[in-house]
Amino acid sequence: MGMMKAIRKKVAGPGLELCEVEIPQIRGDQVLVKIEVAAICGTDLHIYNWDQWSANRIKPPVTAGHEFAGRIVKLGKDVTHLQEGMLVTAEGHFVCGQCYYCRTGQGHICDDVKILGVDVDGIFAKYAAIDAGNIWLLPEDSDPALGAIHDPLGNAVHAANVHCLTGQDVVITGCGPIGLYCIALAKQAGARRVFASDINGYRLGLAKQLGADFVVDAKETDIADLVKEVTGIGADILLEMSGSRQAFASGLGALRKGAGVSLLGIFSDVVNMDLDAVIFNQLTLYGINGRRMFDTWYEMEAALESGLNVKPVITHRFSFEEYEKAMELMNSGQCGKVLLIP
Amino acid sequence: MGMMKAIRKKVAGPGLELCEVEIPQIRGDQVLVKIEVAAICGTDLHIYNWDQWSANRIKPPVTAGHEFAGRIVKLGKDVTHLQEGMLVTAEGHFVCGQCYYCRTGQGHICDDVKILGVDVDGIFAKYAAIDAGNIWLLPEDSDPALGAIHDPLGNAVHAANVHCLTGQDVVITGCGPIGLYCIALAKQAGARRVFASDINGYRLGLAKQLGADFVVDAKETDIADLVKEVTGIGADILLEMSGSRQAFASGLGALRKGAGVSLLGIFSDVVNMDLDAVIFNQLTLYGINGRRMFDTWYEMEAALESGLNVKPVITHRFSFEEYEKAMELMNSGQCGKVLLIP
Amino acid sequence: MGMMKAIRKKVAGPGLELCEVEIPQIRGDQVLVKIEVAAICGTDLHIYNWDQWSANRIKPPVTAGHEFAGRIVKLGKDVTHLQEGMLVTAEGHFVCGQCYYCRTGQGHICDDVKILGVDVDGIFAKYAAIDAGNIWLLPEDSDPALGAIHDPLGNAVHAANVHCLTGQDVVITGCGPIGLYCIALAKQAGARRVFASDINGYRLGLAKQLGADFVVDAKETDIADLVKEVTGIGADILLEMSGSRQAFASGLGALRKGAGVSLLGIFSDVVNMDLDAVIFNQLTLYGINGRRMFDTWYEMEAALESGLNVKPVITHRFSFEEYEKAMELMNSGQCGKVLLIP
Amino acid sequence: MGMMKAIRKKVAGPGLELCEVEIPQIRGDQVLVKIEVAAICGTDLHIYNWDQWSANRIKPPVTAGHEFAGRIVKLGKDVTHLQEGMLVTAEGHFVCGQCYYCRTGQGHICDDVKILGVDVDGIFAKYAAIDAGNIWLLPEDSDPALGAIHDPLGNAVHAANVHCLTGQDVVITGCGPIGLYCIALAKQAGARRVFASDINGYRLGLAKQLGADFVVDAKETDIADLVKEVTGIGADILLEMSGSRQAFASGLGALRKGAGVSLLGIFSDVVNMDLDAVIFNQLTLYGINGRRMFDTWYEMEAALESGLNVKPVITHRFSFEEYEKAMELMNSGQCGKVLLIP
Repeated sequence: MGMMKAIRKKVAGPGLELCEVEIPQIRGDQVLVKIEVAAICGTDLHIYNWDQWSANRIKPPVTAGHEFAGRIVKLGKDVTHLQEGMLVTAEGHFVCGQCYYCRTGQGHICDDVKILGVDVDGIFAKYAAIDAGNIWLLPEDSDPALGAIHDPLGNAVHAANVHCLTGQDVVITGCGPIGLYCIALAKQAGARRVFASDINGYRLGLAKQLGADFVVDAKETDIADLVKEVTGIGADILLEMSGSRQAFASGLGALRKGAGVSLLGIFSDVVNMDLDAVIFNQLTLYGINGRRMFDTWYEMEAALESGLNVKPVITHRFSFEEYEKAMELMNSGQCGKVLLIP
Repeated sequence: MGMMKAIRKKVAGPGLELCEVEIPQIRGDQVLVKIEVAAICGTDLHIYNWDQWSANRIKPPVTAGHEFAGRIVKLGKDVTHLQEGMLVTAEGHFVCGQCYYCRTGQGHICDDVKILGVDVDGIFAKYAAIDAGNIWLLPEDSDPALGAIHDPLGNAVHAANVHCLTGQDVVITGCGPIGLYCIALAKQAGARRVFASDINGYRLGLAKQLGADFVVDAKETDIADLVKEVTGIGADILLEMSGSRQAFASGLGALRKGAGVSLLGIFSDVVNMDLDAVIFNQLTLYGINGRRMFDTWYEMEAALESGLNVKPVITHRFSFEEYEKAMELMNSGQCGKVLLIP
Repeated sequence: MGMMKAIRKKVAGPGLELCEVEIPQIRGDQVLVKIEVAAICGTDLHIYNWDQWSANRIKPPVTAGHEFAGRIVKLGKDVTHLQEGMLVTAEGHFVCGQCYYCRTGQGHICDDVKILGVDVDGIFAKYAAIDAGNIWLLPEDSDPALGAIHDPLGNAVHAANVHCLTGQDVVITGCGPIGLYCIALAKQAGARRVFASDINGYRLGLAKQLGADFVVDAKETDIADLVKEVTGIGADILLEMSGSRQAFASGLGALRKGAGVSLLGIFSDVVNMDLDAVIFNQLTLYGINGRRMFDTWYEMEAALESGLNVKPVITHRFSFEEYEKAMELMNSGQCGKVLLIP
Repeated sequence: MGMMKAIRKKVAGPGLELCEVEIPQIRGDQVLVKIEVAAICGTDLHIYNWDQWSANRIKPPVTAGHEFAGRIVKLGKDVTHLQEGMLVTAEGHFVCGQCYYCRTGQGHICDDVKILGVDVDGIFAKYAAIDAGNIWLLPEDSDPALGAIHDPLGNAVHAANVHCLTGQDVVITGCGPIGLYCIALAKQAGARRVFASDINGYRLGLAKQLGADFVVDAKETDIADLVKEVTGIGADILLEMSGSRQAFASGLGALRKGAGVSLLGIFSDVVNMDLDAVIFNQLTLYGINGRRMFDTWYEMEAALESGLNVKPVITHRFSFEEYEKAMELMNSGQCGKVLLIP
């Protein structure tokens, strides 16, 4: 079908490479998507930096990237419910459909998952082959940049919606893009007060823009103290988005008894925890993995249609040619969500 | 202690009477409250009109009224956690504390409940004796008119919060005060779209003011048609606040499969229901009685502190002397919530 | 592939016909199953009797039957996770996979379902073509008769498991096969006491055999009276399996406040309900449709592996040639589950 | 009222003392109970051994003990719903009734709790003064030894019933009395398979007697290996009753994705946890404190009335005079539940 640009891990080791590859062939149950906007995930940065996880998991060569919006340009022969020209994004977890999890509405923890841009060629490319069952339709008149952040926004929706945030005092530790989305979701859901913490001034500024009622620089203030002072009793909900042990400990300290906790930030190491406090305080901790397929996506659609305020999270746009600049910006932490335009 | 004004049912039969009675004595576990604002409930109207329910339940003489805000002026000798001068309202269900329901956090369905203004003298009076355990503190700087509507607002909170309304398409049948509060609650909770119906033009006007996205005159439009057209699939939640069989049937018809229903409006007669539709559509119906004691009250406090938009529901104020005018206005239906000022 | 026997509705009208038809072709995503044991559902009886529902829904010619156990004898070309020789049954609802319900783990209420033996040729035949995704593996050494009752047993599991029956007082109205399975499930789940009612003496005998603690002939005793007398407060759970308005009213009367109700029996007409009792008693009513795909199937597998006592429900076996005798026995009501052997 | 025997902590330091003290006076809202059977809790052993927790919390002199059955011999003047002669036990947490937790059905985590035998004189005595609201009636013909173990049995019921164990594969780490009760509860609830582990041979023997399907000596076998081998996928539920970090880690390793965990065993130190596994495996962890007041007690009543098999847990009985022998036996670990008879 001709050639296209793609940002790929060609060999094991740090870095990525912008190269020419063949436009992918599609199976009968796939569609070919022309990428309009890609977004960079922390996972892509791990792959770029070639950390331990990447070295274990990635088998080069592979095209990176899984967050995108684009248009269907070709349908596999068995695909009947989609049409060329549709504006779409996709769930990036390709699941087996036959295991216990897939057969009980828990495909997000499928035993045999393949991940877009990790296990199969991703969407840092002009075109990508996507399983039709994973396609998610976007409103025809919507901003493709919002389409491109559905994957991480879905993580936030999944973490937020194991609780009902209406009327709750909510603590969010970590103001990376997913933490920032959580702020917007909590405000939209009618949370009583939203407290957000980070140690990065740039992100604390974004947290204010997103509407957090209290924004805390964790280097200066223990969020537990502030929350206890403001609420008298402690917060109802903790959304842990940082993967930082100190932040998690402070977040737990900010809670009232009987509170709920969503754990999404990855710690990358064992965590010294005061489990007795979890017990005596009758806390409930929910591990959150990916996005429910596709419950979370419908919830996200509703949130966006209702005008969820997440555009300020998107702070930078780069062309594919500038991908290294984009990655280094992300390494600096002086950004929210960073887009790549093919 | 002296005498006071009170609006009482002195003898069985229609009407109420404004009279002079003794200021009530309080038990050791009660407080005496000086009423600042009273509000009229549909129950008070039933007592005024002397319908079948009233004739069976009310044993004159009794002072009517249970919705109020006021200040504590005297403490019973065993009351240690309250103080004179506090601005308060109260849960009007006095429960036994010893039955299965009371001992399992379900006091709102206590087997041996006594109701303020129904079974014991109520608050259409200058002063009222209230059980200390039923007192609910109001913010010192808050509007007593909002304090006076906690009881019916709590019904709305109870009915709304068995669901999580965030992102949901919500149908509300019946735009009396409780239906109107539901509109405000759904909007605050980030509902996707709120559809409200009634047959009373005055109340449909209030529904618009409260922020309903779609307001339907049920005499002209079947809400089921509108909801199916707007949503494509049907609504997620029905809050039935009308007690009208036609409204309930239309509301059920507006739902998608798997939807949830809160039933609060009293039908006063048997209802011809298509239960097979409930079964085939996998609906869940929740009967809602009173307010959870005191879970609902804490949820209400959070909603009000977050700025719940319910003031427009309060449309009229009358002095105690004008109580008959107030009752007749309520009989006309040309009002929202009506206050009585001692 | 040759010819086979099948029991079919050949033309609109009462009755079925045992005839010779071609062994079905299978699609790439199907398997061919040799039927070992079939079971007769109430739906099959409706089709045989040609009631209003059948006349509206069935488009002859079609082979009836959807409850079965058999062995896979041929795989479609795309089927990789199954093997010839496997002992299987199947979920008889073929779902679209693409609607809101299918994409959110609610395939049992799919908007575009096709039903085996109703919309497509069923399993009252020597062989049947079944979608591979609907196949459910049975333990190799298990009794095919138990395999053949998975579909209705799944209805019972679905209705029972929206509650947790452990320690609960459970009322079951209606002792047809699904009501009888509910008795066994409640006993296995550690229900405190199981009360069962019917008006058919044969089935009341089976209810005793299945282990119900109290068995009530509804012609003689109001189950509400008995339950209130035994429990003092009323039952925690009602599983309505009869589709009888009187039984349902009695069942509701047997409940304590705050109780839960599963509705599965079809009423075939509007029901005059005292909804105010549902409201004042804070009841929750769950409409139950089909079996969750495949959550319910895994729960059923666990129940059977733990030795669920349901064999006594299977009371009669007939050959295909005796199908009319079997149908008339079912019309008489003097039976539990009736099997048909090809 | 005269003198009585009581086992008391008279001064700070190890040991207890059997002494003569005055029979307690009761307040108007209390009852005087003549103790028939007392049982020794791990907490009593901590007080006897005078560990760090005891040194910080206990203010001598105080009578130890909170697990008991006895008969009411005197009513406070305000107690109307109880009678002299009743066989009773009691919830040992005296709660404030006015905090957020008490007012929302969560009295078990009351902010201002006083504990029987810890903060106020306990029941290792001939008589004890108990708040009437904490009294729990026992069936008149029941075994007082079973009455005396309600407190720890309630812990087990609370931990078990945050899940529905019916049909589940359940792992129980730790076979002290509470772990043993969990085995009985899981079997009664129709768990699919119950796996229990400990390192104490005596208790492993009891675990078999209580009906565990698989009993594992954790010194020899990793329960994770066994569970994965037997179930193929991992267990659905972990009830952590050991307070051992190794046991907890093995228990987590035994789970399938999406599983639930109750945490009850106290770790007494920080725990190095692989929280990333909790996240990737979408686990939910429930901290469990005390017994829900009084939801758990009603559930316990139902379990016992249905014949819960917990008698084998009670392995030894001693007279008050032999209390040191009883305490040393408990220190040895060669026992189940140990009773003290006044």
